[in-house]
Amino acid sequence: MKEQFVAYIRALQETITTKIEAIDGTASFKEDLWKRPEGGGGLTKVIENGAVFEKGGVNISEVSGKLPESMQQYFGVKEANFFACGLSLVLHPVNPMVPTVHANWRYFEMYDQQGAIIDQWFGGGQDLTPYYLFEQDAVHFHQTCKTACDMHSPLFYPKYKARCDDYFYNDHRGEGRGIGGLFFDYCRISDDMQLEDWYCFVTQVGNSFLDAYTPIVEKRKQLPFTEKQREWQEIRRGRYVEFNLVHDKGTLFGLKTNGRIESILMSLPPRVQWRYNHQPEANSEEEKLINVLKNPINWV
Amino acid sequence: MKEQFVAYIRALQETITTKIEAIDGTASFKEDLWKRPEGGGGLTKVIENGAVFEKGGVNISEVSGKLPESMQQYFGVKEANFFACGLSLVLHPVNPMVPTVHANWRYFEMYDQQGAIIDQWFGGGQDLTPYYLFEQDAVHFHQTCKTACDMHSPLFYPKYKARCDDYFYNDHRGEGRGIGGLFFDYCRISDDMQLEDWYCFVTQVGNSFLDAYTPIVEKRKQLPFTEKQREWQEIRRGRYVEFNLVHDKGTLFGLKTNGRIESILMSLPPRVQWRYNHQPEANSEEEKLINVLKNPINWV
Repeated sequence: MKEQFVAYIRALQETITTKIEAIDGTASFKEDLWKRPEGGGGLTKVIENGAVFEKGGVNISEVSGKLPESMQQYFGVKEANFFACGLSLVLHPVNPMVPTVHANWRYFEMYDQQGAIIDQWFGGGQDLTPYYLFEQDAVHFHQTCKTACDMHSPLFYPKYKARCDDYFYNDHRGEGRGIGGLFFDYCRISDDMQLEDWYCFVTQVGNSFLDAYTPIVEKRKQLPFTEKQREWQEIRRGRYVEFNLVHDKGTLFGLKTNGRIESILMSLPPRVQWRYNHQPEANSEEEKLINVLKNPINWV
Repeated sequence: MKEQFVAYIRALQETITTKIEAIDGTASFKEDLWKRPEGGGGLTKVIENGAVFEKGGVNISEVSGKLPESMQQYFGVKEANFFACGLSLVLHPVNPMVPTVHANWRYFEMYDQQGAIIDQWFGGGQDLTPYYLFEQDAVHFHQTCKTACDMHSPLFYPKYKARCDDYFYNDHRGEGRGIGGLFFDYCRISDDMQLEDWYCFVTQVGNSFLDAYTPIVEKRKQLPFTEKQREWQEIRRGRYVEFNLVHDKGTLFGLKTNGRIESILMSLPPRVQWRYNHQPEANSEEEKLINVLKNPINWV
């Protein structure tokens, strides 16, 4: 499964970056191949200052070795080894009418001292963070997620949609980071789902990513916007930073276990503002967005 | 002591904001008086879009009530009540030649069920975050801190200077947030120091703040700067955000215990940038700063 999923994320990284470059039209991804001293490494691909994408990364990594102390405690095991691989992406568009997107698909194996697998699972998801809410875009994104899920189980979309709303939540602000999508973790072998079934599910979601996101970009990237709308985008990006640095388990885990900082923090937006006590005007488009972030909607 | 220290921070807030407004010349502080539902409240004073200060806050708060669950665990007590008061300030200047400054002076009391004091202490400090390093400014700031400390004990400056370097450290970047100053906490009654002695020490430091910082502002605020230097400032402000949201205990405690979010996050800079893998040029002024942040200097 390791080899199978690694081959998948390598190909998907290529597919996604090729398509994103084509949409952008001017900027291209720069590559950084890095090694982890304790074992493994990754290929970070970053785009900056494009016509459509102001900053983004589409990164893969395959890391392995001794399970760090903090993870031993977390999983309640001792002296285990691990292998983890995945693709993580975040795209921050220039135009505030185009939403930011995040996605991640990953696979984890844990081994005993003899090298036998003692646990293995998939995780991942994809979620959308608009600055201005076009309801048809939200419906399209969620419908694409649901279609991918429904091919595997009618239970998956409602379950993983709700988990996404729960997870990407700025508790200290009482609002979601965005309008959600899917979030799943610890997808383990069960009576219903063999490991190969989970592979099919996760790759189905991965394959749906471009269909879920790029039609929205194509539709909105040419829309005019004002300086005030751009400011709103930068202020909202501040909330994105707050979530990633205060709440996101993946980011904090990476920062606290000597991960590759620049690959982890590529998720942070390029230009950000914090104003004291900024409040949207009553009945504005900005207020409409906040209301939806405070009360998640079932889009499909 | 409660009344004495509250009177002190109220007067100091007035003194500091008056002086900062005078230096700025155009902007003035806006006031927000707020109440905490569980007891107490505060007076937040924020300045934005000034000629010298792009954003800043000088806030006081006096809060009291039942010690929150998380703090009970932290202090190893049960069912205690508390009183806490303090002044917190952060000033983010427009000009990258003028450093950002942070200061905080606070007093805490804990009570048993009968209302008797079971613990009480002072804490605080002040530290400087330059974007371009003027060594004479660093020496002036530290010398002023040292002079205030030395009036109480020759041991204080070296001890609290070292603690400041340790505390305001971006572990994940391997560099200090700035060039330090003073940081002290749990200043309790001992053989050498009565509570009144600590009050004298903490207020001496508080009274030294304007002398430590404002001559630097006056000297640098008119210096010319380029667009590239301003970008460097915004990138470095990103590190300030990273420290405050990932590592700062005060910020995280506030966010996780339902503090007044806008008063806590007034510390975040107004305009911030994150670039992928940004590195200063060899032998540049920017690199000189980084070298000092990686290897703290004894300025006096």
